[in-house]
Amino acid sequence: MTTTESNAPSDTTNPTMTELRRRLGQVSDLGAAEAVMSWEQETSMPDEAARVRGLQLATLAGLTHELFTDAKTGELLDAAEPEAAQDTTDAAIVRVARRDFEKATKLPTEFVEEQTRAQNEAHHAWLAARKGSDFATFAPYLEKMMDLARREADLRGYDEHPYDALLDQYEPGMRVGTVKTIFADLRDRTLPLVQRITAAGDAADYSVLTRPFPAEAQKAFAWKLAGEAFGLHGTFARQDESAHPFMTNFSRSDLRITTRVEPYWPACLFGTWHETGHAMYERGVSERWERTPVSGGASLGVHESQSRLFENLLARSLPFWNRYFSQLQTAAPEVTAGLDAPALYRAVNRVSPSLIRVEADEVTYNFHIMLRFELELALLEGKLKVSELPEAWNAKMQEYLGLTPPDDAQGVLQDVHWSAGLIGYFPTYTLGNLLSVQLLEAAQQDSAIDEGVQNADYAPLLAWLTENVHQYGRSLTPTQITEGATGRPLSADPYVAYLHRKYGEIYGLEDVKD
Amino acid sequence: MTTTESNAPSDTTNPTMTELRRRLGQVSDLGAAEAVMSWEQETSMPDEAARVRGLQLATLAGLTHELFTDAKTGELLDAAEPEAAQDTTDAAIVRVARRDFEKATKLPTEFVEEQTRAQNEAHHAWLAARKGSDFATFAPYLEKMMDLARREADLRGYDEHPYDALLDQYEPGMRVGTVKTIFADLRDRTLPLVQRITAAGDAADYSVLTRPFPAEAQKAFAWKLAGEAFGLHGTFARQDESAHPFMTNFSRSDLRITTRVEPYWPACLFGTWHETGHAMYERGVSERWERTPVSGGASLGVHESQSRLFENLLARSLPFWNRYFSQLQTAAPEVTAGLDAPALYRAVNRVSPSLIRVEADEVTYNFHIMLRFELELALLEGKLKVSELPEAWNAKMQEYLGLTPPDDAQGVLQDVHWSAGLIGYFPTYTLGNLLSVQLLEAAQQDSAIDEGVQNADYAPLLAWLTENVHQYGRSLTPTQITEGATGRPLSADPYVAYLHRKYGEIYGLEDVKD
Repeated sequence: MTTTESNAPSDTTNPTMTELRRRLGQVSDLGAAEAVMSWEQETSMPDEAARVRGLQLATLAGLTHELFTDAKTGELLDAAEPEAAQDTTDAAIVRVARRDFEKATKLPTEFVEEQTRAQNEAHHAWLAARKGSDFATFAPYLEKMMDLARREADLRGYDEHPYDALLDQYEPGMRVGTVKTIFADLRDRTLPLVQRITAAGDAADYSVLTRPFPAEAQKAFAWKLAGEAFGLHGTFARQDESAHPFMTNFSRSDLRITTRVEPYWPACLFGTWHETGHAMYERGVSERWERTPVSGGASLGVHESQSRLFENLLARSLPFWNRYFSQLQTAAPEVTAGLDAPALYRAVNRVSPSLIRVEADEVTYNFHIMLRFELELALLEGKLKVSELPEAWNAKMQEYLGLTPPDDAQGVLQDVHWSAGLIGYFPTYTLGNLLSVQLLEAAQQDSAIDEGVQNADYAPLLAWLTENVHQYGRSLTPTQITEGATGRPLSADPYVAYLHRKYGEIYGLEDVKD
Repeated sequence: MTTTESNAPSDTTNPTMTELRRRLGQVSDLGAAEAVMSWEQETSMPDEAARVRGLQLATLAGLTHELFTDAKTGELLDAAEPEAAQDTTDAAIVRVARRDFEKATKLPTEFVEEQTRAQNEAHHAWLAARKGSDFATFAPYLEKMMDLARREADLRGYDEHPYDALLDQYEPGMRVGTVKTIFADLRDRTLPLVQRITAAGDAADYSVLTRPFPAEAQKAFAWKLAGEAFGLHGTFARQDESAHPFMTNFSRSDLRITTRVEPYWPACLFGTWHETGHAMYERGVSERWERTPVSGGASLGVHESQSRLFENLLARSLPFWNRYFSQLQTAAPEVTAGLDAPALYRAVNRVSPSLIRVEADEVTYNFHIMLRFELELALLEGKLKVSELPEAWNAKMQEYLGLTPPDDAQGVLQDVHWSAGLIGYFPTYTLGNLLSVQLLEAAQQDSAIDEGVQNADYAPLLAWLTENVHQYGRSLTPTQITEGATGRPLSADPYVAYLHRKYGEIYGLEDVKD
């Protein structure tokens, strides 16, 4: 897959296609308006504005859905299809728009409304339950979420397993059987590593990770390197603060990342570079897909592969710190006092089984995901009752990470996803982790890219990612992208080997074998 | 007009009214989305995002217009009207929505499209012409603007004068005859004052106005007093920077003001308090009009009366500086060194005929407006040719202010309005100035308000403005508001008397009589 496709928007002369593109452009613009208002809500909106902003956002979501699912869209798709086939750009737009249209029109309005109401109620119940660490009050809402998920799967349709219908929303084409196979392989080959590291003990000094690093200096340093190392610049991007970090974008020239500043300063730095990975994906999507449904990332997993690649494979590497340690010294002299690049590299790569997913390291993170995947699958299949969930959660935490949560707030109630009806979402985090290494290794087959990575010069790598992943937007499936870019299907092999290589060395486990 | 109306939204049970309100709410929400995206564009958007943002804004404007002018809106208005009459809130909503609907549907789509294209072209031609101070290249575009204005007036319809149809867009109910009468009175009674002040000479030291005042300190001081003196707080408002200061809002609990920092620091301070006046108007509009076309100010003139009241009548008064001078000393010690409150008051009330409208003082400002009003009226009537405009402009500048612009960039080309097709807009600035004094004097009939104003305690005044002006939104016409609040029609008398009183004293013209 080495063809570089033209960046020029397709010069459509087919009048039906023009009308279809006009409508899809309106849908895209309404989506952008909603995204701007949501971003603004998280970054700068005055508190009292929240109530009306909620109504405004609901209107935009409703009008977008109405416009897109209108029968006229279906007619335009039918009418445009034959002529669109003459042009690869038009053909991809029609193909992706039709896929979206069919998905969007499969759920009756009454069902969507019931789901929205129930999710809203479940979310509020979850907030209260987490606060009081009281799973029992959340249980009936989770049962309702599972019931809705089963009904949604039936409405959407599936060949083998209802979970597939849900997973497909986030990872088009992925199947539960594939996830199970890959996850089992990953689990069997990394659980011994976790146990070895835990058993080895860890005498390193991690107090450096909370040394004084003023808030403005954290943000400025993270943003400076987002530009210098990874190519995210103020001419087409902004950095802001928000309670929960995220990336959003309103076009490929309008990227927004947010960060949060904490005493534990790696949260801001690596969080910023994580969002930078997401942003550079959107930046690399070809302009030919602008204001069409083909813009955006191929899937949550492919998106996560980019954020994790930047955050972990690059920014948590020794070459990165060899190159940028002196800048950190300038930005944060108190942090770096008495340290050198290898010592900093060592500190930001601590492995330690922990209770909370979002705080987990590269080695233990995927166990948090596997646990959630296994449990939500059992719930959906009816093999596990909601009432049995906390016990099952804690048992798996003990099995995988040797820990038992002191309460449900730090256990089964920690994540927002289930309360928001996001069943089938969790696996994409680990799929992204796996893909990140598989992609990087494929890119490093090119010696110029490999040399760049060894010297923390990422321009050649970025060009490869743009050519092999980013530019396609949603015109290719995750499988097509994975196989096109790496020559083989997604596998746990590269990730397992990477963990053993990196952490075997860090923890001096010289006999560790994958 | 002392009835305090309930703030509670109307509890509508009429199903047609409910459907109408739903549609009007959607129109309002789309307008809010457009406003958020426009505000964001001016305050924080990355440069490269501009092109796509323009397309997104055009889509929102188009969809808003389409939704509002759809035949269904007219049907709902017809159907809702009889039952709406039972409820004052519903009746006002239907009345204002119908007025807007009829205006919006009077212009054929082809005309609006032609107008939009021509305005866009004229705006770019104006930018280039102003840069090169070359009126001749802008002349054909201005001719086109005047031609479109005449056609628009014919399409909108009018009883006596085509100018009325244009003016009515900005100042509902105002007529060119009334403007002429009021302006002639104002001109005849203030031109001698300008001439007396100019003749008297001015030995005051104005270097204080450009003494060092760091940018962040300017903004912080302006914002602090916007809250402390005028009631604009961060829980429902924000201050940002932009190239041209403005106020916008997305609900009455989501107000945004922008400012610009210059070496001439009064621009930031008084500019902020000007926008604060606009913001507090929107803040005071009753919640009952939320997400309906009745929200917002009654007219540009009434809006300007509030901004000018805050900026000039309050913030450029001696009591204001008596109260807040010590805070300015803390915020800007270099500015205030060797000064006291009366000296500062004196400095920020300099009268000096100047070429540029937006830099003009309270005494000369209205001559800039009268000049523009007279010229655009003559152009519309065909009594003045576009080619004769620069000469006519310069002659009037000499007549009113004793100045001749050195070039057209500092003369006839200085303002954006005509290039944007805004014919009939200028008078509202002066109408607002006049109304500001008429309102303040009416309020000061109440001794508690008067005492507050003398001590720069504006809470009683603000309550009066909310009750007599703000709360009504667009449910009353400017005339109804003016007469209801002040007991008489708009007149130049209070403003003329105010100028003579204030500037007679400042310039020691003790024999000056109105």
